[in-house]
Amino acid sequence: MTITMTATRPYSATETSGPLPARPHVVIVGGGFGGLYLAKALKRVKCDVTIIDRRNFHLFQPLLYQVATGGLAPGDIASPLRAIVRRQRNTRVLLGEVTTVDREKRSVSLADGEEITYDFLVIATGASHDYFGNPDWESLAPGLKTVEDALTIRSRFYRAFEKAEREANSVRRRQLMTFVVVGGGPTGVELAGAISEIAFNTLLQDFRTINPTEARIVLVDSGPQVLAAFPESLGAAAKRALERMHVDVLTGSLATDISSDGVTVRHRDGSTEQIATETVLWAAGVKASPLGALLVDGRDDLLDASGRVRVAANCALPHDERVFVIGDLASYEHQGSEPLPGVAPVAMSQAAYVAKVIRHRMADKPDPAYRYFNKGALATIGRSRAVADFGWLRLTGFPAWFIWVFVHLMSLVGFQNRLVVFVQWVWGYITQDRGNRLITQRDGTDHDLRVPA
Amino acid sequence: MTITMTATRPYSATETSGPLPARPHVVIVGGGFGGLYLAKALKRVKCDVTIIDRRNFHLFQPLLYQVATGGLAPGDIASPLRAIVRRQRNTRVLLGEVTTVDREKRSVSLADGEEITYDFLVIATGASHDYFGNPDWESLAPGLKTVEDALTIRSRFYRAFEKAEREANSVRRRQLMTFVVVGGGPTGVELAGAISEIAFNTLLQDFRTINPTEARIVLVDSGPQVLAAFPESLGAAAKRALERMHVDVLTGSLATDISSDGVTVRHRDGSTEQIATETVLWAAGVKASPLGALLVDGRDDLLDASGRVRVAANCALPHDERVFVIGDLASYEHQGSEPLPGVAPVAMSQAAYVAKVIRHRMADKPDPAYRYFNKGALATIGRSRAVADFGWLRLTGFPAWFIWVFVHLMSLVGFQNRLVVFVQWVWGYITQDRGNRLITQRDGTDHDLRVPA
Repeated sequence: MTITMTATRPYSATETSGPLPARPHVVIVGGGFGGLYLAKALKRVKCDVTIIDRRNFHLFQPLLYQVATGGLAPGDIASPLRAIVRRQRNTRVLLGEVTTVDREKRSVSLADGEEITYDFLVIATGASHDYFGNPDWESLAPGLKTVEDALTIRSRFYRAFEKAEREANSVRRRQLMTFVVVGGGPTGVELAGAISEIAFNTLLQDFRTINPTEARIVLVDSGPQVLAAFPESLGAAAKRALERMHVDVLTGSLATDISSDGVTVRHRDGSTEQIATETVLWAAGVKASPLGALLVDGRDDLLDASGRVRVAANCALPHDERVFVIGDLASYEHQGSEPLPGVAPVAMSQAAYVAKVIRHRMADKPDPAYRYFNKGALATIGRSRAVADFGWLRLTGFPAWFIWVFVHLMSLVGFQNRLVVFVQWVWGYITQDRGNRLITQRDGTDHDLRVPA
Repeated sequence: MTITMTATRPYSATETSGPLPARPHVVIVGGGFGGLYLAKALKRVKCDVTIIDRRNFHLFQPLLYQVATGGLAPGDIASPLRAIVRRQRNTRVLLGEVTTVDREKRSVSLADGEEITYDFLVIATGASHDYFGNPDWESLAPGLKTVEDALTIRSRFYRAFEKAEREANSVRRRQLMTFVVVGGGPTGVELAGAISEIAFNTLLQDFRTINPTEARIVLVDSGPQVLAAFPESLGAAAKRALERMHVDVLTGSLATDISSDGVTVRHRDGSTEQIATETVLWAAGVKASPLGALLVDGRDDLLDASGRVRVAANCALPHDERVFVIGDLASYEHQGSEPLPGVAPVAMSQAAYVAKVIRHRMADKPDPAYRYFNKGALATIGRSRAVADFGWLRLTGFPAWFIWVFVHLMSLVGFQNRLVVFVQWVWGYITQDRGNRLITQRDGTDHDLRVPA
């Protein structure tokens, strides 16, 4: 049984089902939570699996903010894709970038021209930042999606303190020690909380001229509360926790301009404020991977506002039964509600579901139905501070934080990663130190150490 | 008593001693083994210490090759300078680059114009690669001195396998799977050994098209043996160990040209060989930091062939009692022998010595004499394989390797680093895995994942 989604206009689906070969080829584009867990779910299925990714590793994005703030190393939260599927002999990994999809020929092309045919295609290329039509903000306010993003943020952040230490002018010093995070979702809250801990604990004794506790940390969010996806009471608890950590939480405030000198914020009451800063971190908008647009044959009604593909109830394209879209790139209206959020549990659940669909198709059985069971949502604010929403139970403070630590440690791929992260967390919890606060990168702006001017 | 070195020409030393203030200011340029250990040795001395470094961290360079080969993360072998001297209240750290030294005014200037006066100046800025007059080789054959170097090598190395996996042409594939290390000192031997272990163990099951054990690993050295600084018997043992690990060791062979297609090698017998490869690693020449040249007032006889400063017997400039040069930048003829080698133990011993000189000067006592006690030399080749030379005792194989592991673990700055490195080493020893093999960096050539062509 195939449930098709309700499209705003009717359309004629291309008939692309046809007979399946004995050993179908499943091509998965993207090695994130969706792609990787799908490949793993196909381990014992009599098919060949090809994972295509631009990167050679799976990144555990929920902890990327800890790389950006120097608590963990990139390798701690990344595992080589090849190593993960090493013993899964039906699976191969290709390092490459998919540039075109030919659904008629059932093939994808890589940037170097190689063409790979598929029987099933699963696109799980996720999302990147959206600067809401201000592409020039990207270099001024880096977002946090890749390892390189995290290292850029880490360098800028720690360099700001270094520059302040050498700055004689107090106005300039104040500017250097002001940190603005735009966006009050889980990433923004985590970043703001981590910055506060660094200023008030990690760096407390490290400088001789500046006092790190004079840092001003501002979290700007346009909505009425931080952690918009959480119940109001937990959003309020997160806000209080942030404020106790000396973070200025500006809800109902919109960043209207970003320059190398600072951020212009328009408050709820219409007044505007110019916050002088050199360090702006972007945790606001999300834009779906451009691969989505290649799948809809120019039919823009199949893309939502942020470019996600409105998939059918079986996670397939409404017009192609052999092409699935899962994870952050998919807009899935689950049981008539809001589209499912772009979080790892949704991607993993869709991966498991699509593996089941493929098995059913191979056995000539109708597609099973998809049900997403929301196990709950967690967001951490800092040491011993978090919020947890399990629907029937809402937690804050240490209990929520403890669950957060446990869940994240257990979800990390690879025993070595878990062990090393555990050692670093225990160490960090006791000493409040952060061992990975290196200022690195060749990236033009960041590498020039000559510029406190 | 001040012992002055025997210069080839006589010179008139500028009289720069004069009275010392009650609390002299010691400016240390460079936070490596020399600079950092000097600052630590001055902890309880009634002076003010300023460490100036272009980087915000101390790097444990002896393990940098493990970062380059994906065994460790940069943060595992680097510690923030500020964190190390946090509780040493007489010491401050400045992130900056010294561009000029004015010995008349006793001041150094930073790249941003800031001027810092000193009573004692210690230059410990070390060395970088030397391409023997072939600067264009630098981009083709990266050396291994910085964290960025290590990440560049790591990306190139793992990318070569990725490209080979996607290469249909067998000649091209062979080229991609050929790795040439130029220079058979400790770093070159370590790199060649690590590459062999990766090809023959770590990646063994990771690919579906290529067989990593078909990799060709070549170590090129112009001298008669590898590990030239070691006794011949240990050099021969290292060569045998490398050959058992499938490394082609070409001693008496000179790399005469490097291009993007490969390396031209001239053998001892005068014949030349063209080795087709895309991955050449440079572990051959070392060139002293350019700061040395700023100290000699144009007197080139005070610099040796690789730009090191020929210091007096008290590690000071022959013409300025207040300026010391220690570590890799110093050429110190110890008791009339060859200049001391550019290794961490020499830098640390000179740091301890200069701290003593400063204490003596503050107490108006004559400079003590310097004696370097060579505790021995270690070089590792791979898992359970190393050589150790203690003069009275020479070891190879597991015993030497065990000592190497112990010494390096104990020398790592910071308990957290030791613990994390220990966990990763135990894990790596058992599984032969390498968790940090991420292909990262924005660096133009490396970031472009589209190019197996």
